[in-house]
Amino acid sequence: MLPFSSDGQAKKTANLHDLNEPLINHAEGQLFLNEAFQIIVEEVLCKGTDIKQKVCEWKEPEELAHLLDLQLRETGEPQCRLLERVRDVAKYSVKTSHPRFFNQQFGGVDYHALGGRFLTEALNTNLFTYEVAPVFVLMEKEVLRGLRQLVGWTEGDGIFCPGGSTSNMYAMNLARYRLFPEVKSQGLWRLPRLAIFTSPESHYSVQKGAAFMGIGTDNVILVKVDDGGHMSPEDLDEKIQFAKSQGLVPFHVSCTSGTTVQGAFDPLHHIADVCEKHKLWMHVDAAWGGSVLFSKQHRHLMKGVDRANSVAWNPHKMLVAGLQCSVLLLKDTTGLLKQCNSANATYLFQQDKFYDMNLDVGDKSVQCSRKVDCLKLWLMWKAVGSIGLAERVDKAFIHVRYLVEQMKKREGFHLLRDPEFVNVCFWFIPPDLRGKEGNADYWERLSKVAPVIKERMMKQGTMMVGYQPLGNKVNFFRVIVFSPLVTKKDTDFFLDEIERLGNDL
Amino acid sequence: MLPFSSDGQAKKTANLHDLNEPLINHAEGQLFLNEAFQIIVEEVLCKGTDIKQKVCEWKEPEELAHLLDLQLRETGEPQCRLLERVRDVAKYSVKTSHPRFFNQQFGGVDYHALGGRFLTEALNTNLFTYEVAPVFVLMEKEVLRGLRQLVGWTEGDGIFCPGGSTSNMYAMNLARYRLFPEVKSQGLWRLPRLAIFTSPESHYSVQKGAAFMGIGTDNVILVKVDDGGHMSPEDLDEKIQFAKSQGLVPFHVSCTSGTTVQGAFDPLHHIADVCEKHKLWMHVDAAWGGSVLFSKQHRHLMKGVDRANSVAWNPHKMLVAGLQCSVLLLKDTTGLLKQCNSANATYLFQQDKFYDMNLDVGDKSVQCSRKVDCLKLWLMWKAVGSIGLAERVDKAFIHVRYLVEQMKKREGFHLLRDPEFVNVCFWFIPPDLRGKEGNADYWERLSKVAPVIKERMMKQGTMMVGYQPLGNKVNFFRVIVFSPLVTKKDTDFFLDEIERLGNDL
Repeated sequence: MLPFSSDGQAKKTANLHDLNEPLINHAEGQLFLNEAFQIIVEEVLCKGTDIKQKVCEWKEPEELAHLLDLQLRETGEPQCRLLERVRDVAKYSVKTSHPRFFNQQFGGVDYHALGGRFLTEALNTNLFTYEVAPVFVLMEKEVLRGLRQLVGWTEGDGIFCPGGSTSNMYAMNLARYRLFPEVKSQGLWRLPRLAIFTSPESHYSVQKGAAFMGIGTDNVILVKVDDGGHMSPEDLDEKIQFAKSQGLVPFHVSCTSGTTVQGAFDPLHHIADVCEKHKLWMHVDAAWGGSVLFSKQHRHLMKGVDRANSVAWNPHKMLVAGLQCSVLLLKDTTGLLKQCNSANATYLFQQDKFYDMNLDVGDKSVQCSRKVDCLKLWLMWKAVGSIGLAERVDKAFIHVRYLVEQMKKREGFHLLRDPEFVNVCFWFIPPDLRGKEGNADYWERLSKVAPVIKERMMKQGTMMVGYQPLGNKVNFFRVIVFSPLVTKKDTDFFLDEIERLGNDL
Repeated sequence: MLPFSSDGQAKKTANLHDLNEPLINHAEGQLFLNEAFQIIVEEVLCKGTDIKQKVCEWKEPEELAHLLDLQLRETGEPQCRLLERVRDVAKYSVKTSHPRFFNQQFGGVDYHALGGRFLTEALNTNLFTYEVAPVFVLMEKEVLRGLRQLVGWTEGDGIFCPGGSTSNMYAMNLARYRLFPEVKSQGLWRLPRLAIFTSPESHYSVQKGAAFMGIGTDNVILVKVDDGGHMSPEDLDEKIQFAKSQGLVPFHVSCTSGTTVQGAFDPLHHIADVCEKHKLWMHVDAAWGGSVLFSKQHRHLMKGVDRANSVAWNPHKMLVAGLQCSVLLLKDTTGLLKQCNSANATYLFQQDKFYDMNLDVGDKSVQCSRKVDCLKLWLMWKAVGSIGLAERVDKAFIHVRYLVEQMKKREGFHLLRDPEFVNVCFWFIPPDLRGKEGNADYWERLSKVAPVIKERMMKQGTMMVGYQPLGNKVNFFRVIVFSPLVTKKDTDFFLDEIERLGNDL
């Protein structure tokens, strides 16, 4: 198996001409895997979620590269050294499952989803044909059905994609193809200039997608938002009319349910009116916010979503299914997805198979190899039911309400506005700056607070939270509270820690 | 944690307003994970690689859906039921690690890679910034460096992509951007009609990519191949000149190292001459064949690859790193990848960070969330060294030589040609058809042999191999031999089994 056996002694090179011996030794391999599994449980799942332990172990890149001894070499290493490497990778990686990791729209851990992920990895198959992925072809269909039902569609189509950006691009491509099917063969040259509409607070993938797909970022027209980050349907209507008057052909509106920074939900019902009026494809990027659809109490945030043509939703975010778990859901029942993306490769999608060729879903994708991303969500859903997933959403809102109440009681925390979702955006005003809003250098000084607090927290490893500017607002923190591991102790700690790290600034 | 506790008794719904309690119970969760791990080892890694067990357990879709009880419900299920589900998913899934799975360009298992994959899943992070993925930002860089070195580049750039199709699309996008940087903002409308050149035996992702990126499949110009599937540099030159004469602007040549069906390696050195002459971007789709670069004996197949601008290579194929592990390697040292794809999102790629912002590699990607695909390859490489990976490649060629020798000794096996790589393409001629090549219905009857044998083998579950037509050649088998688990016993079995399943046809 290795140039070294498990006791670290150099083994002689495999006899390549002995065809009776495989190159892999299962017993040795499984011993390694078993020990690696124990390390993972201990380092990542026990210590990594323990509030007495650090969220991250900050090292400068040069030092970290040295500690990890990353260099790839000619000869292999003994098992004991490889197990140390597993431990080192775990040690120096950020503990995204830690209850005090508030940095991103992913985090936390769900053990059933994780079990599903391990099983996915071990089964190592590809979601393109029924013959190599019988279980997963059927399972993906059921998971898509379940998610579509929450959108309000009893029929439709869909696909798991490698992330929300890809889902958003698929939607653009479908919208373009529906309007001009000839684009698939002829490209964009014979078509009029197309225009996409979205808000300036939508995800950057709309821009990336427009660039990638040959549409160009100049043809992404930004619609006004209110202070809370919601797209204005009136301005959308005006911008569409203006674009038409300039000779552009509007074809796609990309709304957002749960914007990245503020967590705003665009008014889908009103936007749907505008899209219907102009006959445009309405896409909802609900990568972040989609999970509210599980909650009876909060699903009103997406009222009107059933009127959309497509929805992108990432259960790897709020539902903690694990990276990556991202779907594009479609209302279409005419097979648009397959028509748009198919290439009919005969080596894979043979038309003389002995089973129903519609089960070979791979030709709906622009990928060939496509990872199985449905099992983790399916197993987690089976484990806790729709009720359990709704509870996660509801509890996140309750935690946020508590956090906001506490912030309002403390002098240094200044909310940008009351949160609509589980993104809480705030400035921390150090004592020295309080009451000095009138000073000429106030905003400039405030803009430097968050980066310094961030640096200190990273270096001490006590927690992680992100910051950013937005429009004319200088750097503020965006704390995201949704992990099912979070308790009041963690949100209280969050506030104390921001004060501890920033009070002297 | 669940509506049921581990003993299967209904638990009352979580008290959502008790903010002192997390929604996840670690002890219960880890118990589940531990038991799921044992099932995975037993069902997938032990039974799933045992030649006394089946490769697949064929079920008709309706029956399988029923057996799996896929439906998602309101309430959750007890742990014991969930563990049965893990076992069922494993039972009815195809055992792609089985030594008799010859169906696809992935298969086999490497325990170190698998350990790396489990660790990746547990750490659940995203490869976009150094702050959330310090280890993996540095590791990806080192793995890319190591792979680039094998291509022959001491400098350059690169990125891990979700599959070879995406890598191929990235290459097209870069080629387009290098020639016309304004495409990013303006789209394709103001540009002349662009043309891509590839062979009819290249991967279908070139077509899919052209459609997705607004170029159009009509603008993918197919260059002649010889009978072995190699692109003709002379015809390439002519087709480029002809396209120019028609007002098209050639910009991209997508060559293949290891075509999907025949395993052909395009003559890169000669193609490079043509690309240089016309100043075109030369891309090498080595998703399948790239791994020969590890082998001193076989790397000559890709002679000239160092003259390319980009190379796509999937270590999840021949190197058995596990799905997905796919890289795009670039010769460019000017930062083209980032310029082409960046959107400068301020919430993620803040410019006032306390560390070197070049470490935030995410803006090179068209994805936002991007899975960590480097760890599995890195750990496997550390385990067996470049020498061990070269051995895998060399041994696969030796197995193929043996298989071909045996085929030539048997009456019913008719090779399309001597294989260049580890794809062995052959017709099985049942006794009844032998010597009847002159009959009018010979080819039609032969075309029906492979599908029937395939159906029989799937239903019996003894092995898996794919078939397809190609050009004017009727259905033939393509057996792919590269798994490090294969022994002579398996290749002998393969031949016997084809005869057993097909002798009466």
